Amino acid sequence: MSNIVMSLSGGMDSTTMLGYYLDKGDKVLCVHFQYGSKHNEYELKAVKEVTEYYSVPLKIINMHEAFSNMTSNLMLSGGEIPEGHYEDITMKKTVIPGRNTIFASVLMGIAESIGADTIALGLHQGDHAIYPDCRKEYTKALDALVYLASDRKIEVEAPFLSTDKTGICTVGLKIDVPYQLTRTCYKDQPISCGKCGACQERLIAFELNKRIDPISYEE
Amino acid sequence: MSNIVMSLSGGMDSTTMLGYYLDKGDKVLCVHFQYGSKHNEYELKAVKEVTEYYSVPLKIINMHEAFSNMTSNLMLSGGEIPEGHYEDITMKKTVIPGRNTIFASVLMGIAESIGADTIALGLHQGDHAIYPDCRKEYTKALDALVYLASDRKIEVEAPFLSTDKTGICTVGLKIDVPYQLTRTCYKDQPISCGKCGACQERLIAFELNKRIDPISYEE
Repeated sequence: MSNIVMSLSGGMDSTTMLGYYLDKGDKVLCVHFQYGSKHNEYELKAVKEVTEYYSVPLKIINMHEAFSNMTSNLMLSGGEIPEGHYEDITMKKTVIPGRNTIFASVLMGIAESIGADTIALGLHQGDHAIYPDCRKEYTKALDALVYLASDRKIEVEAPFLSTDKTGICTVGLKIDVPYQLTRTCYKDQPISCGKCGACQERLIAFELNKRIDPISYEE
Repeated sequence: MSNIVMSLSGGMDSTTMLGYYLDKGDKVLCVHFQYGSKHNEYELKAVKEVTEYYSVPLKIINMHEAFSNMTSNLMLSGGEIPEGHYEDITMKKTVIPGRNTIFASVLMGIAESIGADTIALGLHQGDHAIYPDCRKEYTKALDALVYLASDRKIEVEAPFLSTDKTGICTVGLKIDVPYQLTRTCYKDQPISCGKCGACQERLIAFELNKRIDPISYEE
């Protein structure tokens, strides 16, 4: 049994990852970061409902001050969220410099403090085109770094690194992940827009799995 | 000319590094992290005075919430600061899990956001025994990670990685680093104790350089 500290955003990928580890019988602590993104408020609602559903511990960490220095259209301080396909070049505007490394390093510090052996990130293949800190070479470098920084105590896992969103959805549907509680949309609105890259990718994943996405959309 | 984002703690190492880059003609932005250590309040006074002295920009970032999850005797929430030599095994209690990686990843995010090309850390040889996230293999892994995470835009420098405290002091004395403004002591008191590992290492560095440390000590 692994003792895992993982980042839970409340979206499909990290929620499926949580279900996957619990299904394997691992012990999991979820950490949710509030960092000033446009959809952070709606993510928070999702992580609370998901962790209640699974009865797992949740730590919420406010990182607004560090992230107030980062420029990205995904942030409340940034420009419009682009519409279109998730892997389009316009989606580059939603990259937040340093985000995953900051999250991973906080997870590592917590893991070491509580004696956990693994930190887990919900990275997936669909992220690779746009987000440099979601790629395989990045994840391998992060694993080496975390192992060295923790005096050889902690390793990095990203079980969906080579799986696309559709494949993640397939995994999640098999183990009854509560997708009705999750939040994917990048926009600053309670009802998901259905048009931003994140929504589109999600909708395609359900479509290819021949299932209806259980959340509501604007239109 | 490099465009550098560096972490300034207000101690000898990072202050010497700042002097070193300015002496080379580089452009420098200093970032100081407040994270709830026992000496953070006194560090803050030092970084303000040092950056004023050099007329360089300073960003202060509060990271208390993330670090409130980390266990270490260096933290206000932790046990007593051990006395003795800086490389003694008892000093292991002052390690803060994840600290340098968290700092480096925030520096990277800022560097990318402002178009800087380098992040710099004041790591030195004397840190290697006790702090895993100050060693050469760690720094090389961090450099690879930051390069990948920033889409090949940012590199890591640690100019004193293979220099000991005495050597850093030699460099700093040559370029007139204002050591009278710096703060090294780990303890939660305005006057440096002279007995903790950090103070002892500093005092030895001045002694071996045949110079008097310009700051006051308790006895």
